[in-house]
Amino acid sequence: DPLLKVFSLNSNRKLAEDIANHIGTTLGKCTVSAFSDGEIQISIDESVRGCDIYVVQSTSSPVNKHMMELLIMIDALKRASARSINIVMPYYGYARQDRKARSREPITSKLVADLLETAGADRVITLDLHAPQIQGFFNVPIDHLQGVPILANYFEEKNFDDIIVVSPDHGGVTRARKMADYLKAPIGIIDKRRPRPNVSEVMNIVGNIEGKTAILIDDIIDTAGTITLAANALVENGAKEVYACCTHPVLSGPALQRINDSKIKELVVTNSIPLSEEKRGHKVTELSVAPLIGEAITRVHELKSVSLLFD
Amino acid sequence: DPLLKVFSLNSNRKLAEDIANHIGTTLGKCTVSAFSDGEIQISIDESVRGCDIYVVQSTSSPVNKHMMELLIMIDALKRASARSINIVMPYYGYARQDRKARSREPITSKLVADLLETAGADRVITLDLHAPQIQGFFNVPIDHLQGVPILANYFEEKNFDDIIVVSPDHGGVTRARKMADYLKAPIGIIDKRRPRPNVSEVMNIVGNIEGKTAILIDDIIDTAGTITLAANALVENGAKEVYACCTHPVLSGPALQRINDSKIKELVVTNSIPLSEEKRGHKVTELSVAPLIGEAITRVHELKSVSLLFD
Ligand SMILES: Nc1ncnc2c1ncn2[C@@H]1O[C@H](COP(=O)(O)O)[C@@H](O)[C@H]1O
Ligand SMILES: Nc1ncnc2c1ncn2[C@@H]1O[C@H](COP(=O)(O)O)[C@@H](O)[C@H]1O
Repeated sequence: DPLLKVFSLNSNRKLAEDIANHIGTTLGKCTVSAFSDGEIQISIDESVRGCDIYVVQSTSSPVNKHMMELLIMIDALKRASARSINIVMPYYGYARQDRKARSREPITSKLVADLLETAGADRVITLDLHAPQIQGFFNVPIDHLQGVPILANYFEEKNFDDIIVVSPDHGGVTRARKMADYLKAPIGIIDKRRPRPNVSEVMNIVGNIEGKTAILIDDIIDTAGTITLAANALVENGAKEVYACCTHPVLSGPALQRINDSKIKELVVTNSIPLSEEKRGHKVTELSVAPLIGEAITRVHELKSVSLLFD
Repeated sequence: DPLLKVFSLNSNRKLAEDIANHIGTTLGKCTVSAFSDGEIQISIDESVRGCDIYVVQSTSSPVNKHMMELLIMIDALKRASARSINIVMPYYGYARQDRKARSREPITSKLVADLLETAGADRVITLDLHAPQIQGFFNVPIDHLQGVPILANYFEEKNFDDIIVVSPDHGGVTRARKMADYLKAPIGIIDKRRPRPNVSEVMNIVGNIEGKTAILIDDIIDTAGTITLAANALVENGAKEVYACCTHPVLSGPALQRINDSKIKELVVTNSIPLSEEKRGHKVTELSVAPLIGEAITRVHELKSVSLLFD
């Protein structure tokens, strides 16, 4: 359909190309650069009048630059008479600031939703939000895709003998359960607790891991502290081997070093955030979400239900 | 008044302190830092409930980070029950993207206005907008202060014999006229034009500069191409000496080198954008807008007219 156009900003150009390819089109022409003083300069180099536009951009690091690129692009598309502006945001930055945990904190993920709508977004297609409640921060339709099937499929093909899916904390148990359903496996939980205030945490493993292949799953791996401590605890307590996986490989600060130094055998991630050259180490495997997102865009555009892709 | 609080983000901390000082208060306590992955973390460390808050932040380089800091701070203040959130933005970034000069361009300075209002800004106090029309991009009150009196006052104290105020281009003539009124001086214009397409520009000087001290004035000096070419042309055509001044010293890319290599004797700027250590060369003089902004805040808070400060 010549009225469907996919544009890429600077966060995920390769993924955007693969998505366009999957849909059977090529990327729309636009130039996203910076003036001498660092202000973002965007020019859209083909007509978008009356078109349904899909803009691919994760608000991954550098998050503020990627965020402003996206807002400015939406503004330009709106003024260029696009019929609809659909934001494809494989990774939704600032998702962890989704509530006031302390007094006088911002709720930046709600702010981001408001900014996108103010700029002119008509729909958001995203993947594994840190909290599904973020969907409610939007007044426009939001399609919330799931990475678990892609990750589970990868491990399924490994044909492990005896596996257990482990959540690295209490917050991730639902996700681990979903993964375990795919793999027809039991689940375990790393159950950290602080016996008394100012006493160091105790790490307790719930579930039988003895001699098993453990698969740790999380939505985001950022500094990798939690996941590497969990992996080492699993091996020390009798697991045969430990794999880890997540949808969003933020991998900031000490993450890479920690993973390399840990007992994790392989880390499986998606390309919602592209890996830098340095991170494409032998331990990290990247799976593509391009077919999933391509299928979602096709269904949205054909006014078909996307909900089949949700699990 | 204990209900008036001034907070500073990361762009202009020294100026914010001077403003607070001028008002007879100290800066409100808040921490503006970054998580490991670069996401901005803000915590407001004192109550703002029922208070009138003035947040000092220029959206100078790094513009996107400074912009997001400001939006997130506004969100946090709003949720912490501030009575009013007043943005003190000495330099308004993205002001030059204020119209569609070509097809399919964004109008980012209107977007910025919408983002500030969406986040929760109740008022904006700013200085020498690149185009005064940007005031109309806001639906909340905006106080538009002028830097010209501060710059003019500095030159007045030099007691030059015979001066001419020169606009480096056609767009700046009104500003040069205002400066000339203060200094009771004539004006000149650098009148660039392209005789035919694809023929290089001709620089023509309108006004009698022979033997005079010329003062070039602009609102923003960014890469300093225009101003240094103008200065050299003035000296080559008989001016005795050339001073330059502007409100907003963006000074990006080759600016410093160009100024040092040029015939400009002294460049006078305000601290709407703080000068890096490197830029505090012997040619650059910085004047403070703290008294002007302090006075504006006092008047706003006492519900007095700010318009006296406009010229
Ligand atoms: N980019 C970030 N990096 C680390 N922590 C964050 C980040 N953004 C928010 N947080 C904090 O993480 C907590 C939420 O994480 P969670 O409990 O996993 O939902 C909140 O207390 C936030 O203050
Ligand atoms: N940060 C920037 N640096 C240089 N040029 C810019 C910047 N932002 C916008 N512009 C361009 O500058 C022109 C407006 O400048 P002016 O004619 O001085 O108002 C527009 O054509 C913009 O595309």
